[in-house]
Amino acid sequence: MGRFDAIREEACAANLEIDRLGLAILTWGNASAFDPSLGVFAIKPSGLAYGELGPESMVIVDLDGAVAEGKLRPSSDTKTHLVLYRSFAGIRGVCHSHSPYAVAWAQAGRGIPCLGTTHADQTAGEIPCTPMIGPEAVARDYEEGTGELIVETFRGRKPLEAPMALVAGHGPFTWGEGAMDAVRNAAALEEIARMALLTYRIDPDAAPLPDHVMRKHFERKHGPGAYYGQPS
Amino acid sequence: MGRFDAIREEACAANLEIDRLGLAILTWGNASAFDPSLGVFAIKPSGLAYGELGPESMVIVDLDGAVAEGKLRPSSDTKTHLVLYRSFAGIRGVCHSHSPYAVAWAQAGRGIPCLGTTHADQTAGEIPCTPMIGPEAVARDYEEGTGELIVETFRGRKPLEAPMALVAGHGPFTWGEGAMDAVRNAAALEEIARMALLTYRIDPDAAPLPDHVMRKHFERKHGPGAYYGQPS
Amino acid sequence: MGRFDAIREEACAANLEIDRLGLAILTWGNASAFDPSLGVFAIKPSGLAYGELGPESMVIVDLDGAVAEGKLRPSSDTKTHLVLYRSFAGIRGVCHSHSPYAVAWAQAGRGIPCLGTTHADQTAGEIPCTPMIGPEAVARDYEEGTGELIVETFRGRKPLEAPMALVAGHGPFTWGEGAMDAVRNAAALEEIARMALLTYRIDPDAAPLPDHVMRKHFERKHGPGAYYGQPS
Amino acid sequence: MGRFDAIREEACAANLEIDRLGLAILTWGNASAFDPSLGVFAIKPSGLAYGELGPESMVIVDLDGAVAEGKLRPSSDTKTHLVLYRSFAGIRGVCHSHSPYAVAWAQAGRGIPCLGTTHADQTAGEIPCTPMIGPEAVARDYEEGTGELIVETFRGRKPLEAPMALVAGHGPFTWGEGAMDAVRNAAALEEIARMALLTYRIDPDAAPLPDHVMRKHFERKHGPGAYYGQPS
Repeated sequence: MGRFDAIREEACAANLEIDRLGLAILTWGNASAFDPSLGVFAIKPSGLAYGELGPESMVIVDLDGAVAEGKLRPSSDTKTHLVLYRSFAGIRGVCHSHSPYAVAWAQAGRGIPCLGTTHADQTAGEIPCTPMIGPEAVARDYEEGTGELIVETFRGRKPLEAPMALVAGHGPFTWGEGAMDAVRNAAALEEIARMALLTYRIDPDAAPLPDHVMRKHFERKHGPGAYYGQPS
Repeated sequence: MGRFDAIREEACAANLEIDRLGLAILTWGNASAFDPSLGVFAIKPSGLAYGELGPESMVIVDLDGAVAEGKLRPSSDTKTHLVLYRSFAGIRGVCHSHSPYAVAWAQAGRGIPCLGTTHADQTAGEIPCTPMIGPEAVARDYEEGTGELIVETFRGRKPLEAPMALVAGHGPFTWGEGAMDAVRNAAALEEIARMALLTYRIDPDAAPLPDHVMRKHFERKHGPGAYYGQPS
Repeated sequence: MGRFDAIREEACAANLEIDRLGLAILTWGNASAFDPSLGVFAIKPSGLAYGELGPESMVIVDLDGAVAEGKLRPSSDTKTHLVLYRSFAGIRGVCHSHSPYAVAWAQAGRGIPCLGTTHADQTAGEIPCTPMIGPEAVARDYEEGTGELIVETFRGRKPLEAPMALVAGHGPFTWGEGAMDAVRNAAALEEIARMALLTYRIDPDAAPLPDHVMRKHFERKHGPGAYYGQPS
Repeated sequence: MGRFDAIREEACAANLEIDRLGLAILTWGNASAFDPSLGVFAIKPSGLAYGELGPESMVIVDLDGAVAEGKLRPSSDTKTHLVLYRSFAGIRGVCHSHSPYAVAWAQAGRGIPCLGTTHADQTAGEIPCTPMIGPEAVARDYEEGTGELIVETFRGRKPLEAPMALVAGHGPFTWGEGAMDAVRNAAALEEIARMALLTYRIDPDAAPLPDHVMRKHFERKHGPGAYYGQPS
């Protein structure tokens, strides 16, 4: 078992964080941790309650979608995670939550405009929403098609500079340099989604953050001269 | 006492879950567990705080509405539970919560359209709202009349494929294959009700989920080839 | 000290319940317990954090507003409690919270229409909002004037059948047969206020609950043939 | 180390209170404690999780913005704190939170009108929102410019009588007689921001609190004859 232990533990901790941060109720939501050198990722088993999860219940899946190790059936969203790992170079964690404000934007089929610095700290520009998945993609492979929609929507963007997307009619997917990072991005997305909705309640015509402030906030955290956080 | 112990414990645990999931404040809300072989159900006593409940305080009621065992008065909503057990084949748990978003849809007298996959995972189509109960039904037997309204609203539907209803001006009733299942359906309904309200805040003209996505999500969880959850 | 111990403990427990139920942040809010046979009530000291409260810190105030026992200064709202104890026969507890939905209705200067059975379970009819207090009443005695406004608003109503009011521009006051009862009524009012706001978000023209349902719900809990709760 | 211990502990406790009161998620938000006699303040290190903070991780910064003691990089908002300490006589604590309702008003670029006594208890009048920071100020020194905007907005006001401001497109800054006081003002601001938004949901034309009530509430807490709280 030894060689999958690290991603089992990482994936388990990240899934528990979904629950702890209130990003999904009941058994909803899932996170995975990817090890590129082994070519596999560890993901939450389908339909289990968060209270029942341990590192040993994580399912190990390879990049062909086959279960490499584990007795349980993996999350029903496994193929969406798979497509993201295949397509987005450098990501090592994916999270799908069911947090209510992010889901609301997804159900409205709208991307979230950048209305303030809380948003700009995470990503410079709108958080995009995919188009609605078509009948052919659902008939072929629904979960794979969902992943392809996200990838399509990010064409031309660096995935790690904007590690979050809304899938129309569905909900948020986020990613990061690890599974825990992906879950924290899901928490940031939910808070941004909530703030944006509240802002429009106060002023339906609220303007996006001017570009000079948006770039400044994003750069101080993610740019070459970033001074947010501690030097690594 | 022995033969009612299992449903006493199941009903007690389910009632405590109403409180733990925040689906009702104070003494509001109630859940029951039904044993068809014994022809009785165990239900919360009326007006007790959640902190005071134990398996021994549950009241055992038969299908004529008579108390079969227990010193306390059963929930004032007992007859509504009774009508559902009599009318909906296969259900073994009922829950009535007072969660605020579900109540708001019920007070507005509106069913909740299926706006996304979170909803479709639970039930394919609108979550229905009954008509307002009439003066005659209130005069005859209010709680029985409430149950009959729900049954009437579900005519032609399979109760376990859509285990949730709103009663106009009142609130949500949910059911399931057990009492805990009924309470979890109440939690799912509350989250769906919240997401739907938020979606319409973002776009008052948000469209329902297209049929091909709605069917897919419902089928992957509840259809013949379901692959959500673990094989039982 | 002995003879004030019971109301000290009752008032302290009720104030801690304000905090536990999330009805006020920081030092906001206050509750008191009245003993008619002693002619005094115990009330929270002004400006203390909930974590610092014990039965010994409660201040004993008589019906002339004088401190009968206690080293701390009583709540700045003491005279409002006093007016209610003097004017509303049979009440033995008062609570003033700062819960956000109830405050919002008070700031809008609007009573809360009875939109559903959750509301009717507490009181049959609108939860009234006082008019705005005038400059003369503020100049004379602001807190006394606030109490008088509430009493004026309830002229012709039985105070224990409708144990809650909104003070325009200010917030909720509730009362009951004891201090804990008053705090629970504050929790009920907050939930009703939240449900009413959410209902109007779904349908700005939502209709009040028909009279036959409103009376039925109120009567089954508070009428002569009440069957909610346990026989006392 | 000894001489900075008091402000290290005060700043650490205040930062932990941001987390405990739910005023920011993840690593967002920061608070500092100022000692005028030493001419330095203690501030949260940048990007650390609240769970990792201890008094020893606080960074000591002097009034020229230089790190006087500490191995970690200070909060990226340090210069905004610095400008406030330099400009607002008598303040000894500053807090920057990311609480959602206050951020929403800031993102809408609007001050919060005084709609009720909860607001008037904190500050008599509107809670102001700065103009949007210009490109030149961002290019020169963004965080310093942010502080200057706040100072500019408060010209003619006593900072300790209105210890809270919104920065357009950004979020709330609050201050006080100590770091914990600043954090509690951030909690008060968030609750006021939430109540104001809810009030306008009920009545878009809700009127500000009349002056005679606003002055009365502010004076009973902060005026010369104040009777709120305990004599100090």
